[in-house]
Amino acid sequence: MKSTLYLVGGGPGDPDLITMKAVKILREAEVIIYDALANPTLLDYCSASAIKIFAGKRMGCHYLSQEEINQLIVDHGRMYTTVVRLKGGDPFVFGRAHEEMNAARSAGMKVEVIPGVSSSTAAPASQMIPLTCRGINESFWVTTGTTKSGDISPDIAHAAKSTATVVILMAMSRLEPIMDIFAAAGKEDTPVAIIQNATATNEKCVIGTVRDIVHRAAYEQMSNPAVIVVGEVVSLRTAFTSEHGHYVDITYDEAIKRRL
Amino acid sequence: MKSTLYLVGGGPGDPDLITMKAVKILREAEVIIYDALANPTLLDYCSASAIKIFAGKRMGCHYLSQEEINQLIVDHGRMYTTVVRLKGGDPFVFGRAHEEMNAARSAGMKVEVIPGVSSSTAAPASQMIPLTCRGINESFWVTTGTTKSGDISPDIAHAAKSTATVVILMAMSRLEPIMDIFAAAGKEDTPVAIIQNATATNEKCVIGTVRDIVHRAAYEQMSNPAVIVVGEVVSLRTAFTSEHGHYVDITYDEAIKRRL
Repeated sequence: MKSTLYLVGGGPGDPDLITMKAVKILREAEVIIYDALANPTLLDYCSASAIKIFAGKRMGCHYLSQEEINQLIVDHGRMYTTVVRLKGGDPFVFGRAHEEMNAARSAGMKVEVIPGVSSSTAAPASQMIPLTCRGINESFWVTTGTTKSGDISPDIAHAAKSTATVVILMAMSRLEPIMDIFAAAGKEDTPVAIIQNATATNEKCVIGTVRDIVHRAAYEQMSNPAVIVVGEVVSLRTAFTSEHGHYVDITYDEAIKRRL
Repeated sequence: MKSTLYLVGGGPGDPDLITMKAVKILREAEVIIYDALANPTLLDYCSASAIKIFAGKRMGCHYLSQEEINQLIVDHGRMYTTVVRLKGGDPFVFGRAHEEMNAARSAGMKVEVIPGVSSSTAAPASQMIPLTCRGINESFWVTTGTTKSGDISPDIAHAAKSTATVVILMAMSRLEPIMDIFAAAGKEDTPVAIIQNATATNEKCVIGTVRDIVHRAAYEQMSNPAVIVVGEVVSLRTAFTSEHGHYVDITYDEAIKRRL
């Protein structure tokens, strides 16, 4: 088999945040198997004759199972030389890329990875929240918050004890128990940002603290795809609030008023 | 002042890993203040009439001080409407972006951030090391390893106790004390990868464990810019060794032989 699987990162919501390298591969691709998370306008880079297959994986709701996706890759690798697996963000950040790589290689395909801009860094940047700031902290931690079995990861407790900015992806359904772990580590007053549809035109952000973010998020009906950012650096954002129009930004006073 | 500072991520070593959005801004820029880390061929996107200023920051060796860079931004903001600060990787991942934003805004400039592909994710991807893998772990932790004062960050000890893949940037001079912290957490056999000049044509990688990576790295004269990856996921790479030509890959036996 002389076929190559390209695992391509499509970047976050803004379609211009795709890389030049990814665009070049999309132009050459004979087959594109794409996720719900990748911005669909990215398919405009593909040739009209290319086969485009919607795999539909998004936040655990699978239109196709991982096994079916692996099989699609291998089946098309038998007939075509350039098969692209287009994913939102970066293919190696929670992308289950390793499983797809294994399937392709077991069938004799070559594999290449084209990194992309991950929402784990782009979402805070879109809200002008630096992940680290000299004198405040020197690390950030990216997690889904849950293990393979669906339990809250014990790593959250380690992260809560550190100064790391903690970035949690795809975890809106677990927001409350995760905040409880930060509260138990004495971080009730640590600021939290939740950024939904980051870098897309419908981006939305809610700011609060470990103590009150669950209520604020519920009030604003925040849901996945969302990035949760916990850390002192979130407070650096406030100075830049006025320039960004397309999010919900409620101060503490406003939040109190609205709830009354 | 009707000027905007664009903090632009130039991506890692491969110039094709820049985003479409960054290219569009570079084409419009009147002034580009760029770091040593950004691939210099990226300047080819700029107009011939654009003013290009080398700020030369790289791994703590500053050609210009942070204060001088801030002053350059503000001075050019007074005369031009589109000022770009081009950085390697992502501007918000250890980029001191917040300090430059503050300087620009204090002078009345607008600020926009264009996220880029960070070497923290692109370097492991280039070596086919997934940062997380279902059943192995569910998080990764990115750090420089040192605090503002130059001490080893206490966060390293927290990270060493977790299952997180730990990604350490710009820390080759601190490799030994950092590995000691992992060893003290019982992780002497945890695999480690060091990736130098990630995604560039001169990329080089050495694989070892917490116990022996210091010696292997010294033998191969590994130096910054390098990304250190500590975690069980590093072992997933070995199956993909043969496809990548341009790195030094030494097995344990080879390393022993070479040292004898």
